Amino acid sequence: MHQLKVGLDKHLLGLKGLSKTEILGILNRASYWENYPTKVTNYLSGHFVANMFFENSTRTRFSFEMAEKRLSTEVLNFSAAVSSVQKGESIYDTVKTLESMGIDAGVIRIKPIGVLQELAPKIKIPLINAGDGNNEHPTQALLDIYTMRKHFGYIEGLHVSIIGDILHSRVARSNLWGLLAMGAKVSFCAPRNMQAPELAEFAPYVSIEEAIKADVVMMLRVQLERHDQGMIKSAEQYRELFGLTEKRERNLKDHAIIMHPAPVNRNVEIDDSLIEHPRSKIFSQISNGVPIRMAVIERALT
Amino acid sequence: MHQLKVGLDKHLLGLKGLSKTEILGILNRASYWENYPTKVTNYLSGHFVANMFFENSTRTRFSFEMAEKRLSTEVLNFSAAVSSVQKGESIYDTVKTLESMGIDAGVIRIKPIGVLQELAPKIKIPLINAGDGNNEHPTQALLDIYTMRKHFGYIEGLHVSIIGDILHSRVARSNLWGLLAMGAKVSFCAPRNMQAPELAEFAPYVSIEEAIKADVVMMLRVQLERHDQGMIKSAEQYRELFGLTEKRERNLKDHAIIMHPAPVNRNVEIDDSLIEHPRSKIFSQISNGVPIRMAVIERALT
Amino acid sequence: MHQLKVGLDKHLLGLKGLSKTEILGILNRASYWENYPTKVTNYLSGHFVANMFFENSTRTRFSFEMAEKRLSTEVLNFSAAVSSVQKGESIYDTVKTLESMGIDAGVIRIKPIGVLQELAPKIKIPLINAGDGNNEHPTQALLDIYTMRKHFGYIEGLHVSIIGDILHSRVARSNLWGLLAMGAKVSFCAPRNMQAPELAEFAPYVSIEEAIKADVVMMLRVQLERHDQGMIKSAEQYRELFGLTEKRERNLKDHAIIMHPAPVNRNVEIDDSLIEHPRSKIFSQISNGVPIRMAVIERALT
Repeated sequence: MHQLKVGLDKHLLGLKGLSKTEILGILNRASYWENYPTKVTNYLSGHFVANMFFENSTRTRFSFEMAEKRLSTEVLNFSAAVSSVQKGESIYDTVKTLESMGIDAGVIRIKPIGVLQELAPKIKIPLINAGDGNNEHPTQALLDIYTMRKHFGYIEGLHVSIIGDILHSRVARSNLWGLLAMGAKVSFCAPRNMQAPELAEFAPYVSIEEAIKADVVMMLRVQLERHDQGMIKSAEQYRELFGLTEKRERNLKDHAIIMHPAPVNRNVEIDDSLIEHPRSKIFSQISNGVPIRMAVIERALT
Repeated sequence: MHQLKVGLDKHLLGLKGLSKTEILGILNRASYWENYPTKVTNYLSGHFVANMFFENSTRTRFSFEMAEKRLSTEVLNFSAAVSSVQKGESIYDTVKTLESMGIDAGVIRIKPIGVLQELAPKIKIPLINAGDGNNEHPTQALLDIYTMRKHFGYIEGLHVSIIGDILHSRVARSNLWGLLAMGAKVSFCAPRNMQAPELAEFAPYVSIEEAIKADVVMMLRVQLERHDQGMIKSAEQYRELFGLTEKRERNLKDHAIIMHPAPVNRNVEIDDSLIEHPRSKIFSQISNGVPIRMAVIERALT
Repeated sequence: MHQLKVGLDKHLLGLKGLSKTEILGILNRASYWENYPTKVTNYLSGHFVANMFFENSTRTRFSFEMAEKRLSTEVLNFSAAVSSVQKGESIYDTVKTLESMGIDAGVIRIKPIGVLQELAPKIKIPLINAGDGNNEHPTQALLDIYTMRKHFGYIEGLHVSIIGDILHSRVARSNLWGLLAMGAKVSFCAPRNMQAPELAEFAPYVSIEEAIKADVVMMLRVQLERHDQGMIKSAEQYRELFGLTEKRERNLKDHAIIMHPAPVNRNVEIDDSLIEHPRSKIFSQISNGVPIRMAVIERALT
């Protein structure tokens, strides 16, 4: 009934299924934009991008908006709190409405999983996933991989440990798919009630002592309030068992780097003093998000 | 005490009282903008438009914002939820404040009726009504009339049925005034407790069987929660008695079109399968909203 | 640990400590922008300014946004209600995040006092205080002083009375520091429970009869709900004891002007009929806010 009007190479719903070549294409364009001589180019002026945040996120929305404005696209924002979704309007109707108004691409953050996959073939404009439930957050993983490549010069053969609430983490999943496609090795480390068993065939669950021996130690934000029945009783206990403490940092490999998708819980999953530590790439990750999103917007619109 | 600084031909408070010539002028400019070769023109760059939504509406705000950005005006948005109106500031003070800051036109959605009419002569900038209570929603009716003219080639002599909650509908009222000015014939169809008796002298209330014999069958969004004491007990019953069902659609005239201002309650006032039916103009209406609003902004600013 | 990357002459955290020369520099540039032949200049295009309102304020945010857009900077807005600050992210992390994304200046409104002073040396971009608690609101005082200078031609030797809730007023404090630096004389007038005793050495508290004999009578917005234990029992009583009534207005000096930072409580601190009285500069103050903020943005970015 609906025609597929947008090639799959325009949408970015997730990194699962994306090839190494496709990922490399995005990373290389991000590098181009990072080194672009001016902050703003009129390269994509005359295009309209809608940032549709059915779940609030200041930092991700800001990063997309920076990317869009650096490319001179027109930007329209809405967040669910003030949207007609309140009137019971379906996501499909909302996105189809914006498409009918003439937007050229949609950046969407949404809680329920599967909605984007259902939506994409019914919509004539490219959709970019800005985070859907615990499924995928592809631009976050792309900026993480970009940050690793910028530091090490390569991804193939790198060992990346992802430590924390794997179960609820779209960041962990998108990194897993992207890193595997790029030829990296991934390990997970999590308390039992924060593990996602279905991912164990792709990345082994290891102890914290083993996890911190990787080339990249990626900490995840933990939200203890989601886990009231688990083995972890307090933020202090989480820090002691799974946090990247100053003490553990001293056991990292000399060349290892620390990453975190932010926002951080200071002194829970990572010690305060490590956030701006020489090993830490946390604020570089944030900076790299802008050229990565420029590359993703460009891919959608050109 | 206040000088009238803006000609009445700059404001757009409603379609009541607007002449056929004035409406035609707007429709013709909308057609010009719909066929404009580029999405963005710098025609109105250097002008500032404020979208002041004292009542939230993502879709109407988006449509105005698209129109404004296609004309290269600078756009400032606020919605009441985050406005100083919370501090008890009056609407007059808010609008006067924005005027003092240098905005050139204001698009206003507001609940209380009469406020805009009171405001307009005290303000030096043109005001565009983006929906006020159940009074008027002139740009919606203009885009509806534009959609009809685009389909049929003319408005004079068309028979338009408006079906649903006439009592609470600004869309019905604005369409009534605009369509009568253009020489169309309007019929209403509504359960007794959703009728507006004061409009009966302009458009007769007819049965659903008669209503669906019109050239244009315009369904209205129904909000049953507003009518808990009426004859209608449930969405199912509303659909059965007043909804545009698949069965009723088969009794429409061959050339008849279906319209709805959206958002729709799927399977309440209209069956799901009719929303993107060949007869349906629902998403065309949304598309046409942008050039109509470009014409209205242009009329205000030039 | 953090390097001071921004000269103190780029931030605008308050008027306390600003020299007459610095204030004059801003006033003179504001005058330049007020008289600029076009509404928009591309003078600062390619720069990104973030309006970070951790406390909502439509009018101040609008005024900054007008100023920023008249200078062609790219503008990113957020208000705390939809920000990641909800997730417990610290202000430092939020501002550092936006800095990492590439914004060139931040306009910040925030409730807690002292946060901005702590933040500024840790951040590489200039920060502009858009109101912090009852501490400072420097752009408001600059536009007030600009309005006085525009009317009288000079500031030195002027007598300015500030009447109302001095205790909770950042406007009073910023005006005090700015006016003293410029050589004006300031008097305060307030009910005892709205006085700030620590300011008495800089400006005497006088009676309402004496206060209204100044060259500039500046009324402050009163929020009686903050003072339930004071001597003032009602809005009527406040008006009678400390309001600028029509009767008191007749006792003003012939050349005196009336000011108010707005929004006003009509018929509480000032009578309705005085708001647009020939003596009143209230809406001029609002107009003057835009060129003042242009000058402050320019100072931050150039």
